[in-house]
Amino acid sequence: MPSSFQEMWAELLPVGRHAGSGGYRRFAWTGADAECRAWFREQAAARGLTCETDRNGNQWAWLGDPAAGDAVVTGSHLDSVPDGGAFDGPLGVVSAFAALDGLAARGARPSRPIAVVNFGDEEGARFGLACAGSRLTAGVLTPERAAGLRDADGISLPEAMERAGHDPGAIGPDDERLARVGVFVELHVEQGRHLADTASPVGVASSIWPHGRWRFDFRGVADHAGTTRMEDRHDPMPAYAATVLAARARAAAAGARATFGKLSVEPNGVNAIPSLVRAWLDARAAGQDVLDRLVGEIEGEAREHAARDGVRVELTRESFTPVVDFAPALRDELAGLLAARRPYEVPVLPTGAGHDAGILAAKVPTAMLFVRNPTGVSHSPAEHAREDDCVAGVEALTDVLEELACR
Amino acid sequence: MPSSFQEMWAELLPVGRHAGSGGYRRFAWTGADAECRAWFREQAAARGLTCETDRNGNQWAWLGDPAAGDAVVTGSHLDSVPDGGAFDGPLGVVSAFAALDGLAARGARPSRPIAVVNFGDEEGARFGLACAGSRLTAGVLTPERAAGLRDADGISLPEAMERAGHDPGAIGPDDERLARVGVFVELHVEQGRHLADTASPVGVASSIWPHGRWRFDFRGVADHAGTTRMEDRHDPMPAYAATVLAARARAAAAGARATFGKLSVEPNGVNAIPSLVRAWLDARAAGQDVLDRLVGEIEGEAREHAARDGVRVELTRESFTPVVDFAPALRDELAGLLAARRPYEVPVLPTGAGHDAGILAAKVPTAMLFVRNPTGVSHSPAEHAREDDCVAGVEALTDVLEELACR
Repeated sequence: MPSSFQEMWAELLPVGRHAGSGGYRRFAWTGADAECRAWFREQAAARGLTCETDRNGNQWAWLGDPAAGDAVVTGSHLDSVPDGGAFDGPLGVVSAFAALDGLAARGARPSRPIAVVNFGDEEGARFGLACAGSRLTAGVLTPERAAGLRDADGISLPEAMERAGHDPGAIGPDDERLARVGVFVELHVEQGRHLADTASPVGVASSIWPHGRWRFDFRGVADHAGTTRMEDRHDPMPAYAATVLAARARAAAAGARATFGKLSVEPNGVNAIPSLVRAWLDARAAGQDVLDRLVGEIEGEAREHAARDGVRVELTRESFTPVVDFAPALRDELAGLLAARRPYEVPVLPTGAGHDAGILAAKVPTAMLFVRNPTGVSHSPAEHAREDDCVAGVEALTDVLEELACR
Repeated sequence: MPSSFQEMWAELLPVGRHAGSGGYRRFAWTGADAECRAWFREQAAARGLTCETDRNGNQWAWLGDPAAGDAVVTGSHLDSVPDGGAFDGPLGVVSAFAALDGLAARGARPSRPIAVVNFGDEEGARFGLACAGSRLTAGVLTPERAAGLRDADGISLPEAMERAGHDPGAIGPDDERLARVGVFVELHVEQGRHLADTASPVGVASSIWPHGRWRFDFRGVADHAGTTRMEDRHDPMPAYAATVLAARARAAAAGARATFGKLSVEPNGVNAIPSLVRAWLDARAAGQDVLDRLVGEIEGEAREHAARDGVRVELTRESFTPVVDFAPALRDELAGLLAARRPYEVPVLPTGAGHDAGILAAKVPTAMLFVRNPTGVSHSPAEHAREDDCVAGVEALTDVLEELACR
């Protein structure tokens, strides 16, 4: 008998957990990632599903014949941000297996193949590019660009794949595999507080805000912190600092989001004026025009402050995902179906977070279910969802699979 | 025949040099440090000097009998800041050996023992505390506190010593050794531009500004960068940024120095609001009262901004060195002696940089010679001194040793 939701959850809980922070460090192609992948294979085997890893390192567990096509696919990812929470990603994968068990318990007989998927490297924590696995498969990340991605130790993505036992020689677009997917539904813990103040443990996604990552390289001149007069410096830190404050003010004014959460300083010595402050801006907004204006304003302030301090600033857009509007017919169908069976409303809500579902939406009809997050916190050890809400999520996903695959 | 100044310089030049930055990474008790120490032993052996490493890891090379006491000691350090220059430290050690050769060439006969010293861990790049070797010896750093120092990988100072083959069991004050030192003279590349605009390749130090290091821990709440509204955040980065700008403005107004050059961010993910921004302030001023007021103002602004953003800030003073006024009689003697033999003036100048000489000054008569730095840049790969100025430094140090040890 396969593991229950609670058993699966308990099995995954210790994998890649950092004792100090209590958060997760499940980075792509590391030992913790390999443990997550082994867990996925075991769950597939316990259910008699056919497990395969595609050319881009995404795992698929099939019920029925993949070659039959028009499959109903569900799942999410198992990797994490640095010191992330237990729910972001894994909840969707664990719920997918549990929903298959739910279908079996109901005696449902699928007429379409069903697959559970674990997309590789969704968070981009190691190589700096989110959704690398789904982007490669969908052809929006080229193999050439993927081959140039490096982690903080200078290890390239192909090297990391090779060390983890995955052949990087065939990474790239995978139209054949995508052609088998009739519909994709990703269940995810909500990242935000839309559902927190409602009576609804489950919601349906309407859209994903356009979002991207920009690297700001502020370059100055290293010098002695104790002997260089303030007026003689070319210190890149104040220009960075002014840009942080500008980003916050501009984003607040625009009802958007702008965050500098990752930083690298050289030479990073207490008594040395830095030669380089490298900082990453994560920016998102409800619409493309608002986002473009926001990033333009932040860039303008960075350039102005850098020029004033005699330092240089260079911008690199490392990733960008345009607005994603999930297939309206599918979205309305799922929201209606769920609401009809429940004593509570099923809200339809947008999100500022990127997902593999956002990448796949350009290729196949795609939907997302959100499970209530009582604090809204995510990307943090404090990320949480109540167990009864998680169970409600599994119920909802089971209904969706039954409707899509068995009718 | 021992190596010439130029030969010694060429031998040291590749040790611990980072190919990418062109700067030096000679951190205490690492492989590069061990290479520097081996070089020191070889130079001592080539000159028939007795080499010993004291309980705190400082190296001494003796000409004459150490037990005779009232020794004339000269030297500096061989370690570096991250991506530091070639001159800060090594110039003083190489010049010390070259000055001994100069004495021999003049046929001078020392009546007092002379030692060349290489103080361990002057920059504090690895364990965060500058002048650890001389501080331990002088008793201003306790063995208990030293044992608690850890590097970025969590390795303690005693562990690092042990791994490098040095017994950490006896670290601590070394009055017996200090009692042998009659006078200490440290030659150092100038860090600043006092001499740059003069015709003088060499100057004498008057004083060292009081200076210290303060760690600021800004603690907020990690959360998702894309989904957390700007007004719901407890992001520690803006409070840090405001503190950087405050530090610059306050230091400029006070004619002092304040620098945030080292930073550590957790979890340091592009799409995560940080839970912790840990930043180190290096602050210095001509007088204690000015420095106290400056640090108080910066702390006040940090607390104000942190409170406004709902984040916490905690300050830890990690090191502090009060103003050092070098022995006035010795300083004037050396300045007069040097000026009498030269066609240029020998300026007497203060410095904002800390030195082992500043630590020893509390225990024994101490002086410093500075060699001209044409750009003033230090703690950077661009740090430089002209070869003829270095040779003038060796000549001056030879005069000083002859005057102190042979008259």
